[in-house]
Amino acid sequence: LRLTHFKLCPFSRAARILIGELHLEANLDPVLPWALTPAFLNKTPSARLPVLELDDETHLSGFYALSEFMADAQIHEMDIADLLTGAPHSDELPAKPLAVMPGDIEDRAEIRRLIEWFHQKCDREVTQEFLYEKVRLVLDRRVAAPPNAGILRSARSNLRYHLDYIGFLSDQRRWLGGDDFSLADIVAAAHVSIADYLGEIIWEDVPHALGWYQRVKSRKSFRPLLGDRLVGVAPAAHYAELDF
Amino acid sequence: LRLTHFKLCPFSRAARILIGELHLEANLDPVLPWALTPAFLNKTPSARLPVLELDDETHLSGFYALSEFMADAQIHEMDIADLLTGAPHSDELPAKPLAVMPGDIEDRAEIRRLIEWFHQKCDREVTQEFLYEKVRLVLDRRVAAPPNAGILRSARSNLRYHLDYIGFLSDQRRWLGGDDFSLADIVAAAHVSIADYLGEIIWEDVPHALGWYQRVKSRKSFRPLLGDRLVGVAPAAHYAELDF
Repeated sequence: LRLTHFKLCPFSRAARILIGELHLEANLDPVLPWALTPAFLNKTPSARLPVLELDDETHLSGFYALSEFMADAQIHEMDIADLLTGAPHSDELPAKPLAVMPGDIEDRAEIRRLIEWFHQKCDREVTQEFLYEKVRLVLDRRVAAPPNAGILRSARSNLRYHLDYIGFLSDQRRWLGGDDFSLADIVAAAHVSIADYLGEIIWEDVPHALGWYQRVKSRKSFRPLLGDRLVGVAPAAHYAELDF
Repeated sequence: LRLTHFKLCPFSRAARILIGELHLEANLDPVLPWALTPAFLNKTPSARLPVLELDDETHLSGFYALSEFMADAQIHEMDIADLLTGAPHSDELPAKPLAVMPGDIEDRAEIRRLIEWFHQKCDREVTQEFLYEKVRLVLDRRVAAPPNAGILRSARSNLRYHLDYIGFLSDQRRWLGGDDFSLADIVAAAHVSIADYLGEIIWEDVPHALGWYQRVKSRKSFRPLLGDRLVGVAPAAHYAELDF
């Protein structure tokens, strides 16, 4: 099981957390999304990260195909570990892997509504703006330039709005999508963790979102992400701390 | 069954085609995405179009929640028409509604890969750019300005790349996602139809994509979209023609 990913790509991060929650293990193959190799593009012309290789012939390209594949396997009671030939983690983990799409048909619609909210709206108006201004302009010599202050200002104001929405939801419910930890939390946490890595969150201002993020951060599936370091772009000092 | 939509929103258009393919009928409630009312925002704070109201309490917000709800209902062999209290269309239609997610688990992963490709990549680099430059700048007095020639040039060059990919796929397969007409075709056609409405496609240059689009356009589910007229932004002369 092999996952081609970029450390600060929200789709890649969400896939890594999901894989951990399913008690699977994947070998990680890091790439820079603006410098994909011809070999990679030949295999996956759509160039959507992440790409999960199940075997030589089958690749899941993009988070939507990947996450719904896992849900699909669970619905049809396929053994995901068998299907993917991935070895389960050690015995320390809780016995049951995450139910990818729990609840009834309306619960699942709510989880998917939130996934779209973060992976499309938050991605466009917050995450991709920060990634371009604070990561790509630094690391990609072809576009090197100072960040655009106006874009950063608007991304920060949008981020605050998304954090307030997370706070609002986690005030009403145990987790964002309902009673259970779900893909909605995974996807939201992927975006929040990138803004946090880049030092963009003032946690004192958003206590409700903070409480939720502390709970996500302390999950075993989240730990590997806390060890991420992107060469050339250091994380905020508190990025890996569980108590921040 | 009531669908809040915007005539040139790709997510809304895909939902309308899907609803037609499922032999359902929805009352259409048109809105402008940049002028949503407080009443609408109270009901659906995420403000993602389209919104399908199943009943007073249940709203499906966003295309992902909506399309996977339909797939979910089919997997669990719920009668969608019953579930949605929507009346079926007239008897002229073929007896069987579209299977929303056909084939095996890998076929479905391929369909979802393509949906993400169009709804995220094509949306960001083509559709939303055209919509902003050619529709919103015209209709929304608060941002009125001449279109940005550089952005239009880049959206056009990206569009050509997407049309070539459609041509490539429809050369290899009967439909974009495989042997059967599927959500992948619906979503791709939603984006293509917006570029076509705005007169951005030179069909002589892309004969393979043309052949595919003619087949989609002649489906009954697509007809209502060919009657769309957005006040202030006229469609291209050939927009509604089946032979173009």
